Amino acid sequence: MPESALHYLTISEAAALIASKQLSPVELVAAHLDRIESTDERLNSFVTLLADEAKAAAASAESEIQAGNYRGALHGIPVGLKDLYYTKGVRTTIGSKIMGEFVPDYDAAVTERFQDSGAIIMGKLQMHEFALGATSENPHHGPAHNPWDITRITGGSSGGSGSSVAAGQCMSALGSDTGGSVRIPSSACGIVGHKPTFGRISRHGVFPLANSLDTVGPMTRTVMDAAIVMNVIAGYDARDQSCANRPDEDFTRLLGQDIAGLRIGVPQDYFYDVIDDEVRTALQQSASKLEELGAHVEDCSIPALNDSISISGTILLTEAAEIHLDNLRECADDLGADVRGRLEEGAMTTAVAYIAAQRARTEFNRAFADAFKSYDILLAPTNAIPAPKIGENIIEINGQTEHKLAVMPRLTRPHNVCGIPTVSVPCGFSSDGLPIGMQLAASPFNDALALQVAHAYEQSTNWHTMHPPL
Amino acid sequence: MPESALHYLTISEAAALIASKQLSPVELVAAHLDRIESTDERLNSFVTLLADEAKAAAASAESEIQAGNYRGALHGIPVGLKDLYYTKGVRTTIGSKIMGEFVPDYDAAVTERFQDSGAIIMGKLQMHEFALGATSENPHHGPAHNPWDITRITGGSSGGSGSSVAAGQCMSALGSDTGGSVRIPSSACGIVGHKPTFGRISRHGVFPLANSLDTVGPMTRTVMDAAIVMNVIAGYDARDQSCANRPDEDFTRLLGQDIAGLRIGVPQDYFYDVIDDEVRTALQQSASKLEELGAHVEDCSIPALNDSISISGTILLTEAAEIHLDNLRECADDLGADVRGRLEEGAMTTAVAYIAAQRARTEFNRAFADAFKSYDILLAPTNAIPAPKIGENIIEINGQTEHKLAVMPRLTRPHNVCGIPTVSVPCGFSSDGLPIGMQLAASPFNDALALQVAHAYEQSTNWHTMHPPL
Repeated sequence: MPESALHYLTISEAAALIASKQLSPVELVAAHLDRIESTDERLNSFVTLLADEAKAAAASAESEIQAGNYRGALHGIPVGLKDLYYTKGVRTTIGSKIMGEFVPDYDAAVTERFQDSGAIIMGKLQMHEFALGATSENPHHGPAHNPWDITRITGGSSGGSGSSVAAGQCMSALGSDTGGSVRIPSSACGIVGHKPTFGRISRHGVFPLANSLDTVGPMTRTVMDAAIVMNVIAGYDARDQSCANRPDEDFTRLLGQDIAGLRIGVPQDYFYDVIDDEVRTALQQSASKLEELGAHVEDCSIPALNDSISISGTILLTEAAEIHLDNLRECADDLGADVRGRLEEGAMTTAVAYIAAQRARTEFNRAFADAFKSYDILLAPTNAIPAPKIGENIIEINGQTEHKLAVMPRLTRPHNVCGIPTVSVPCGFSSDGLPIGMQLAASPFNDALALQVAHAYEQSTNWHTMHPPL
Repeated sequence: MPESALHYLTISEAAALIASKQLSPVELVAAHLDRIESTDERLNSFVTLLADEAKAAAASAESEIQAGNYRGALHGIPVGLKDLYYTKGVRTTIGSKIMGEFVPDYDAAVTERFQDSGAIIMGKLQMHEFALGATSENPHHGPAHNPWDITRITGGSSGGSGSSVAAGQCMSALGSDTGGSVRIPSSACGIVGHKPTFGRISRHGVFPLANSLDTVGPMTRTVMDAAIVMNVIAGYDARDQSCANRPDEDFTRLLGQDIAGLRIGVPQDYFYDVIDDEVRTALQQSASKLEELGAHVEDCSIPALNDSISISGTILLTEAAEIHLDNLRECADDLGADVRGRLEEGAMTTAVAYIAAQRARTEFNRAFADAFKSYDILLAPTNAIPAPKIGENIIEINGQTEHKLAVMPRLTRPHNVCGIPTVSVPCGFSSDGLPIGMQLAASPFNDALALQVAHAYEQSTNWHTMHPPL
């Protein structure tokens, strides 16, 4: 098989070839290492490339498979990890100067699961400082660049995960999502990102941002691939107190099933207050497409959405400040200015304000639970705008100026507040050729349903077959 | 039956007589109203006596039972409610000047359950201001007095519940327990108090003190009676977000079963640091008694116990301050001095300190979960001292001076931090003739097991047959 074709195979395509011994993991990994070599100077996706380790793991996978010990759909598949997943013996920077050359002495639960599945870990991927920086775009390792236009941001905080998967450097990368950090770069880079139900995947060994909001999830080029990765990484782990003790499940089980008759609500509050016209249009067209597929799509109202930012902001910054209290006391100068400022804001917040936010969150969750009595899926845009230029902090949206920080994580926050599973799936391009994404959210632990609808939509479009002009 | 015998019947005895029509609820309620009339000037248990309502309810119960519609073990049984349970149309003061003549327009979930069971609500019982006052002993309604020595406190915050049950004014009263407020007065008044597993009983319509610690539970003169009341008041209620969605159960199901072979751990940390010698001796004798009954009793260590006060104190005061923020802003002068001071302390606490306390709580819970791998039951004293004199804030314990506030709720806090079911059961008397109590705690949702061991102990002693010299 010509090498140029390999790096844009989907996981399901590659897995079929590997399982039938038509494709060797060694060949597949080599093709991806070549792709990284030819693109990463421009993209800056990788913080730490594990080329030798990946080659050795690929050789080992090949031997196992040749010996008849095929482990499953990720065996021999090149994947990447956001640089906050602990990797035993491998530097893990959390995108920060402070962590520097920190080398964990154990693996994250999902690192273990990747290894057990036979996936090949290609390296550690670029991220915003402590998953919180945003204007500074990781001041210590430089920003990742968007493969669709390398003058533009990838979105964050899982920016390197977004660029590496979109550019064919990895077949999947894991991100983490506290306020949108899987979905924002997935949308900006034109790939699929799944923020699972809070508690569905262990966060053991994942450097935390905010404990009551943090989730980890897969970023892939197709919905099927996201479901395949979910099958490997999801499951109970007593080491994460928030991890739900539920049986394993097959996240691909609904893919390909008809979505006719499913009820899709499109909340009109909040999501369209500040939005680019082209994004709005793409969303309307996507809603029409879902109707063509037989879903009942209708506008709805969830006024509680307007509390998203106050709830999420208070909880996120206070929980983050508690984690970083020693950093604030001892090495605040080594924090990026935006991260320091936000952590200091969190450290000064009163407990009473935090508790009030958690109380408001309970009401917020109730409002969503009510909405899910009427709808199977809630549809919303992922990002209000296509990816802005690197360094461009003041953004114009339909003639109105906004700060990037106020706009970029705005539409993804609600789903973290209520912990619901949400897939971001590509749904069009701007006139500048930049990807647009939409979010399909289901009620807690109905990840498979969100993936089903995302898959049905994706398969009715060509978006997933388009690749960036690299 | 002579009236004098009626007010010290147990619920199980009275229920058998009522079910077989040998005793009329009208007669039983009249006997209790007489008892209240003859004792409450000295005890001050009641804030609001519902004499007419109780008589009418008793007449109605009698008619129903005569017509063959016996509802079960609480039908016709006189009970009381701590004055923070909402009672539709009946003043509910929460022990405070601020709530004044507040009349709720709905019933608490447990008020509803009492009414559905046919229990006769005799009135609303004295409590500490907002369940938080302690040195002031409800400055707005005066203190409840201990039936064993009316110059002494009942303990709080469910003090009126303790004195009324101990004195034979009610056959059971409900208290609430955030840091010990069911168990402390139960121990001080020589009765049984059960703090159930966090989430086992709905708190809908119960004025909150601290949401992540609050529980409500029965106070009775025997363990069997506590289990009988639990059968009525425990169960799922979607109106309380913390209420566990679990099937109903029979809390009497293990009572009378042999406790031989059960493993009882006696944590040596914390509980005996500051303790009256007579209490210590009573606990040692109780442990020996449990061994005689066939249990394996051994000393154990849970060092995390030493964090009880810092965790519980931070969480309790901050959550309380959030609830009372408007009171602090608008009518702080109407708060008792101690309540105001503690709420102000809570209001000034940072979110970071609160989150750190919740994080420490997670570790604390893990330590208890580990202990319950080795033991079925954990044994501890309830109060470090017998009830002090009213107004006596500085207390001498074995020659050492301590503040009452530091001593009284000290030994009951740990069980709220980890939410475990805990029965306080009488286990002796001091040389002054004051009751001493011990706590038997089980792992979460094993309330029936804690009741089983408490019942076995109780039935092997005479403590429950002794009544105060009123």
